[in-house]
Amino acid sequence: MSHSEIACVPGGVTAPLGFRASGVACGIKASGAPDLALIVPDGPSSAAAVFTTNLAQAAPVVISREHLVRSRGRAAGIVVNSGCANACTGADGAGHAREMAARTAAAIGGEPHDVLVASTGVIGVKLDIAAVRRGIEDGARRLSRDGAHAAARAIMTTDPFPKESSVEVSSPLGTFRVGGMAKGSGMIEPLMATMLGFVTTDAAVEPSVLQRALSAVVNETFNAITVDGECSTNDCVFALANGISGVRLDDADLTLLAEALTAVCEPLAVNIVRGGEGATKLITVHVTGAASVPDARRAARAIANSPLVKTAIHGGDPNWGRLIAVAGRSGAAFSLDHAAVRLGTVELFSRGTPYDDRAATAAAYLQSGEIDVHVDLGTGGSGRSRMWTCDLSAEYVRINAEYRT
Amino acid sequence: MSHSEIACVPGGVTAPLGFRASGVACGIKASGAPDLALIVPDGPSSAAAVFTTNLAQAAPVVISREHLVRSRGRAAGIVVNSGCANACTGADGAGHAREMAARTAAAIGGEPHDVLVASTGVIGVKLDIAAVRRGIEDGARRLSRDGAHAAARAIMTTDPFPKESSVEVSSPLGTFRVGGMAKGSGMIEPLMATMLGFVTTDAAVEPSVLQRALSAVVNETFNAITVDGECSTNDCVFALANGISGVRLDDADLTLLAEALTAVCEPLAVNIVRGGEGATKLITVHVTGAASVPDARRAARAIANSPLVKTAIHGGDPNWGRLIAVAGRSGAAFSLDHAAVRLGTVELFSRGTPYDDRAATAAAYLQSGEIDVHVDLGTGGSGRSRMWTCDLSAEYVRINAEYRT
Repeated sequence: MSHSEIACVPGGVTAPLGFRASGVACGIKASGAPDLALIVPDGPSSAAAVFTTNLAQAAPVVISREHLVRSRGRAAGIVVNSGCANACTGADGAGHAREMAARTAAAIGGEPHDVLVASTGVIGVKLDIAAVRRGIEDGARRLSRDGAHAAARAIMTTDPFPKESSVEVSSPLGTFRVGGMAKGSGMIEPLMATMLGFVTTDAAVEPSVLQRALSAVVNETFNAITVDGECSTNDCVFALANGISGVRLDDADLTLLAEALTAVCEPLAVNIVRGGEGATKLITVHVTGAASVPDARRAARAIANSPLVKTAIHGGDPNWGRLIAVAGRSGAAFSLDHAAVRLGTVELFSRGTPYDDRAATAAAYLQSGEIDVHVDLGTGGSGRSRMWTCDLSAEYVRINAEYRT
Repeated sequence: MSHSEIACVPGGVTAPLGFRASGVACGIKASGAPDLALIVPDGPSSAAAVFTTNLAQAAPVVISREHLVRSRGRAAGIVVNSGCANACTGADGAGHAREMAARTAAAIGGEPHDVLVASTGVIGVKLDIAAVRRGIEDGARRLSRDGAHAAARAIMTTDPFPKESSVEVSSPLGTFRVGGMAKGSGMIEPLMATMLGFVTTDAAVEPSVLQRALSAVVNETFNAITVDGECSTNDCVFALANGISGVRLDDADLTLLAEALTAVCEPLAVNIVRGGEGATKLITVHVTGAASVPDARRAARAIANSPLVKTAIHGGDPNWGRLIAVAGRSGAAFSLDHAAVRLGTVELFSRGTPYDDRAATAAAYLQSGEIDVHVDLGTGGSGRSRMWTCDLSAEYVRINAEYRT
C-alpha cells in the first residue's frame, strides 16, 4: 500500500482504542502463576477465528466455534485460561467451557454465545471450575486499558516470555491500530498447532472480511512456524474489530487489512519459535526452485521438522547432506543434479558438487542465534516458501519428559 | 504353514549353505574400525532388492538398481562399505560405485553388473576409493563360511551393536535356511530409511518370486520401524537365493517364503529400533479401530514419530493426552467420543472418559524397557497396524549434534 505506513507502537491487545484486558492468578496452576485472561472490547465487535485442524478438539474449541456461528461473527469478549487444556474431558469439559462463557457474559454484559473461550495446558485433566469462576470475577474487576501485558502473561504455559505486538496504521482512510498477543512453546506445528493467538483492531470491519483477512494471514504466519511438528487439540487465533477508530475497511481494503494483521502476527509467530521449548536458535527455512507453492511448503515443512537438521544446527554442524536428504524424501519434486544448499550466504552444495572447503565458514555462521537455511529443489520451477523453526536441544527432551511428573 | 517349523539357528548371513562373508577395516573410517563387508554365494544366485524412496539417491543405490536390471535379477556378490555414504558426490561418486562393483567382480569372479553395492555413512563426502580397493582385495581373501559376524560388524555406523538373525525352516518341501544382517540407528523411518539389510537363503527361488516376497516382508518389518522419521539417500535391503539346499520355492510357496523371511527380518528391524540413537526403550505402537489399514498405518506412524509421545515415554510420563492429540492430527479418521488409549494393560482413556487414578500404575509400567502403546481410533472400523519405535532422549540430540564435528 503505497500510501499507508505501518509503525510499531506499544500496548499489545489494548493498543487499539476501546479494548480492555486483564490477567489474574485464580489457582488453576499449582504454582500460583497467572492463569486467566480477559479481552473485552467497548461495544459489540466483529469476530473471526481460525481453529486447530486436529480431529481431537478440546471443549473450548467446539464451544467457541458454535458461539461464533450463533452470534453471526460478533463477540462481546474473550476468556482464556492456561494450566488446563480442558481437552478429552467429556461432557463435564463441554459444560465447563459453556460455564466459562456464561460467567464471563454475566460479568461483562452480553449473552453467553457472545463470548469466545480458549484453554491451554495439560490434556485430559478436569478444569478446576471453581477457580475459573473466581478468576472471571476477579478478571472482570481488573479490566483496564493497560491490562494487555497482564493478559499476555496469564496465557503462558511453558513459554519463556510473553509475546505481544501492536502497530499503528496511517492510511488514506485514516489511522487505526492492530494489537495482538500469543502463547505457545511446545506442541507447535503449522496448521494451528498448540498455540493461542489474539488480535484486536479498532478498525470497523465486517465479520466476513475480517475472517478472510485472518485466514490468509494465519496461513503465512502462525501456520508457517513449527517447533516440533505437533498440532494440538486446543489451538486457535481469534480476532476482534470494534470499529472505534472510525476507519472502515471493506472488501476493497483487504490488502491493507492483511498487511496490518501480518505486521502484528508475524513477530508473534516468530517469537513463539524463538521461545520454543529448549530453543537456542531461530531458523528461517527458505525453499526455492519448487515445482509449485504446495511443493515448496511441503519441503520447507519437512526440513523445519527434521530432527536431524535441527540437531545438526543445534550442534553448529554444517551438515548440508541432511538438508538434501530431507528435501529428497519430502514428497516434493526434487532434482539432485540441480539442487543447491546455502547456509546464510555460504553455498555448500550446488549442481551435484559439494563445497566442503567452505564448511569452516558455514560452521562459524551457525554460531549465530538466527540462521537462514536456503534449499533450492532444483526443478527450475518458481514455487517458493518460507517457514520458521528452532533447533532441537537436549533441553527440549528434558522439558517434555518432565512436563507432568 | 501348518506343516512347517521355523527355528532360530546361529550363523547370520552365512547360516544358509553356500554363502561366504567377510568384514575388514580398510581405512575409510578414521577410527580404524571395520568398514567393508562382502557377501558371496557359491554360484550364481537370484537377487531381489528394495531401495530408498528418497529422491536424492546415492550413487550405490542408482548403480545397484541398474545392475539388478542388467543381470535380470541375478547376483554374484554384494559389497558394502560403512563410514561414507557416497551420496551427493556427483560423477565421481557414480564412478566410485561402479569401480567398487568392478573390483569386487574381478576378485570373486563375474561381471561388474553381477555385483550389488551399498554404502552408509556421512553424506556428501568423497569416497576414499584407494582404501576401498584395498578393502575389497583383503575382504575377498578373508571370505569364509563363518565370516557373517565380521561382516555384520563392518557395516555398522552409529549402531551400538551388530544385528544378525538366521533361521532353519523344516517344511514338507525339505529343509532350508534364511540368514540376515542389518545396520541402522539414526535417520531411520519407515519407507526404507537409513538402514541396510541383507538376507540370504539356500532355497531355490526365481528372482520374480524372491522380489515379491521381499517387498511384502520389508513392508511389514523394515518399513514398520522408525527412530526419528528420517529417510536416507542410501538405504536398501538385498536378498540372495543360491538354491544350494535343493529346496525349490515357487509361486505357490510364497506364503512359506514370506514367513521365513519375516522370521529373519522382524528381529533385525526391531533390533535396529532397540539400538536406535539414544534409545532407552523399545516402543510397539498398536493402532486399532481405524477406518482402513492405510489410516491405521498413518496414525501409527504419526504416533511413532511424535517427539512429544517419545519424550513422555522417555520420562516415564503416562501422558495419554499426547497420544490422542497425535492420533487426531494424523490425517486418519478419528472419533474422540469412541477412541481409547491403553499403555500395556492399563486403560487410561475410553469413550470420552479419562482414568487418571490409573496414572501411577501406568507410570510404573513405563519404567520397563519394552512398552506397548495401544490406540483405538474409535471409528468402529477393522483397520489395524503395528509399528516399532524408540523413545527420544537427550542422548539422541547429543549424538546428532556432534556426528561430524
